[in-house]
Amino acid sequence: MFLTVMTVAEALAALAPARRSAVVPVKPALGVVPAEDVLSGEQIPAWARATVDGYAVRAVDTYAAAETLPAFLEVLDAVTMGRAPDGEVGPGGAMAIPTGGLLPHGADAVVMVEHTSEPMPGHVELLRGVAPGDGVLQPGEEAMAGDVLAPAGRPLRAADLGLLAAAGVTELAAHERPRVGIVSTGDEIVPAYTPTPAPGQVRDACAPALAGLVREAGGEAVQRGIVPDDADELERVLGEAIAEDDLVVVSAGSSVGARDLTATVAARLGEVVCHGLAVRPGKPTLLADCGGVPFVGLPGNPRSALVVFRLVGVPLVRTVAGITAPPPAAAVRARLACDVPSAAGRLDVVQATVDGGIATPRFGSSALLGPMVHADGWFRVPEPDTGLGAGAEVDVELYG
Amino acid sequence: MFLTVMTVAEALAALAPARRSAVVPVKPALGVVPAEDVLSGEQIPAWARATVDGYAVRAVDTYAAAETLPAFLEVLDAVTMGRAPDGEVGPGGAMAIPTGGLLPHGADAVVMVEHTSEPMPGHVELLRGVAPGDGVLQPGEEAMAGDVLAPAGRPLRAADLGLLAAAGVTELAAHERPRVGIVSTGDEIVPAYTPTPAPGQVRDACAPALAGLVREAGGEAVQRGIVPDDADELERVLGEAIAEDDLVVVSAGSSVGARDLTATVAARLGEVVCHGLAVRPGKPTLLADCGGVPFVGLPGNPRSALVVFRLVGVPLVRTVAGITAPPPAAAVRARLACDVPSAAGRLDVVQATVDGGIATPRFGSSALLGPMVHADGWFRVPEPDTGLGAGAEVDVELYG
Repeated sequence: MFLTVMTVAEALAALAPARRSAVVPVKPALGVVPAEDVLSGEQIPAWARATVDGYAVRAVDTYAAAETLPAFLEVLDAVTMGRAPDGEVGPGGAMAIPTGGLLPHGADAVVMVEHTSEPMPGHVELLRGVAPGDGVLQPGEEAMAGDVLAPAGRPLRAADLGLLAAAGVTELAAHERPRVGIVSTGDEIVPAYTPTPAPGQVRDACAPALAGLVREAGGEAVQRGIVPDDADELERVLGEAIAEDDLVVVSAGSSVGARDLTATVAARLGEVVCHGLAVRPGKPTLLADCGGVPFVGLPGNPRSALVVFRLVGVPLVRTVAGITAPPPAAAVRARLACDVPSAAGRLDVVQATVDGGIATPRFGSSALLGPMVHADGWFRVPEPDTGLGAGAEVDVELYG
Repeated sequence: MFLTVMTVAEALAALAPARRSAVVPVKPALGVVPAEDVLSGEQIPAWARATVDGYAVRAVDTYAAAETLPAFLEVLDAVTMGRAPDGEVGPGGAMAIPTGGLLPHGADAVVMVEHTSEPMPGHVELLRGVAPGDGVLQPGEEAMAGDVLAPAGRPLRAADLGLLAAAGVTELAAHERPRVGIVSTGDEIVPAYTPTPAPGQVRDACAPALAGLVREAGGEAVQRGIVPDDADELERVLGEAIAEDDLVVVSAGSSVGARDLTATVAARLGEVVCHGLAVRPGKPTLLADCGGVPFVGLPGNPRSALVVFRLVGVPLVRTVAGITAPPPAAAVRARLACDVPSAAGRLDVVQATVDGGIATPRFGSSALLGPMVHADGWFRVPEPDTGLGAGAEVDVELYG
């Protein structure tokens, strides 16, 4: 039954998808994946600006200034927000300027208002000296023309949206969300909306959960429905999915018959890469390459299916989406509350709650979703290990 | 100017929003916030099911079985997936059963096929004994009727979608996404799509970045545009926002004039809670309570604005959204590459890159977005600390 068993790393190397999702022009938005580096077309800021409220001055006029001997300057004008100042700051002169105001010609520094006093209208006393550039944001200090504003392959975050807006970038070339076809098989599987399944029937828990994971990973779930255990019908539906989608996932039913059927049809549609994964839970996983479209046949137990999809499906979705940046390592380090047995050569994925730095494993049949639903995250017992002792440190990867 | 300065904790306590977003019936989906505990209407699974491929038996018939002395049983029938088995398993009998198959009457355990042999058609030899319940998922083992499937106040995750589908829950009472009104002020601010801002003008970087953060926090951004520095016009736009939105955020322009204006208008529309936050960057933050609608006047520098919105705005959005679960602590522990100065009584938020367990701070004027764009996350130097030394451990909260 498990002719070839691979580790997750081997499987990902063997399945490397040939396709990337299409590149289209889009508006900047959270999670958009730039297909190429987004470069600045101009320098930001375009002009020197004040970073404090105060007076624009020539630094050379302020060198001797001190509380005991203030420098005395004539206030020529005030800089208005949003406009280029009229005139320039000559020797002995100053202009009032608000934070963000455009630095007038002649001035090379801004004295903070806190370090000044106004002895009479039209004049200012400086109680401290400034050096050229003090209180000033220089042109191009945020970015020069040609600088990378957002790198290719890293999904845009909130701060990126700000920087792109500052540079006037309102459109960029980005990867579309990969389409992930989701097919459920198994004569026992009925839709979630079935009010009262007949004895022996179970509602399809896997497809909706997979759709959630696909979305989290940056893909678009394409629900292709429930197919009975019939090779020709399964081949028809999967063939359509392979033609139209970037990645195809089959939640294969839990019976040996459903698994065999998936393997048979996968072999007709492409090349089987492995019949099992060295992972617990999740061993009965079938992976195939269908002309560059990765085909993931998941185990029938929903929890095993979700564990395997996180390990194998999510990286594949990210690859097809053109994401080259590593996923954020959203993990907490914690100490194990108890021993966790494992077997060498197999990756164990263990659900856990984390409280006060202590990780408590949530065990239970992999036919149950409960241990995952009630967990804060999961940790790995890597392939070489035969188990971890109570007190060992683990990195618990957190659910969002 | 800073009449009252609060810590973030004080501000959040003072601003506690009176409103929660409306509760509506929705389909289960990622991030949906249940307004009440979602209870199971039935037991899951409804019937006892096999968790392995093998033979359904009466455990009492197998007690003596061993490799040297197999138990010999008559195979009456095979359980078909998706159907209730005909007949029952009597003494000395067995039924072939696939994983997920409904356990036939009379049987109380399933022997794995790996521990059997078939000496002649219609019979099976068991090489091991089983106890009652072995290889069986009991009715209600996932959930009993009345059990909580998904708790109120925790956004739904992928595994929750699976469990809800298993229970046939296709609709639940959930909070709508809070509406967050975003207003930009400042005579210098022009829209991001302005091809060539005039001297002194700057493109609105803040509003798009805030919209991203709002979305991340589970809210819906309502872009209310750019308002010039005019008290009546600002009051009109903000008044509309307060009437229609659950939370109002003003990116207040960087000039002292724009800040004063925001404070004036906030005092007209509600009660000012504080004029400053003990946070760097982000001190010039104005918070007000407008009849239960929190009003957040952000600093003019986009990076300061984003830091403050993460600290104050995100928790407020979550509260209005009915989220009571703590946010996932997506952080990595790392050692500081260098000293980080701070001042007692002030929270410092420091952008950082993390590589190999080392956190390298990204400093720079808070007028620059760059340090945040290039950071992997951020860490805090808490209010009581006067700084952190090189080598100190910090928890870097990661950007998604």
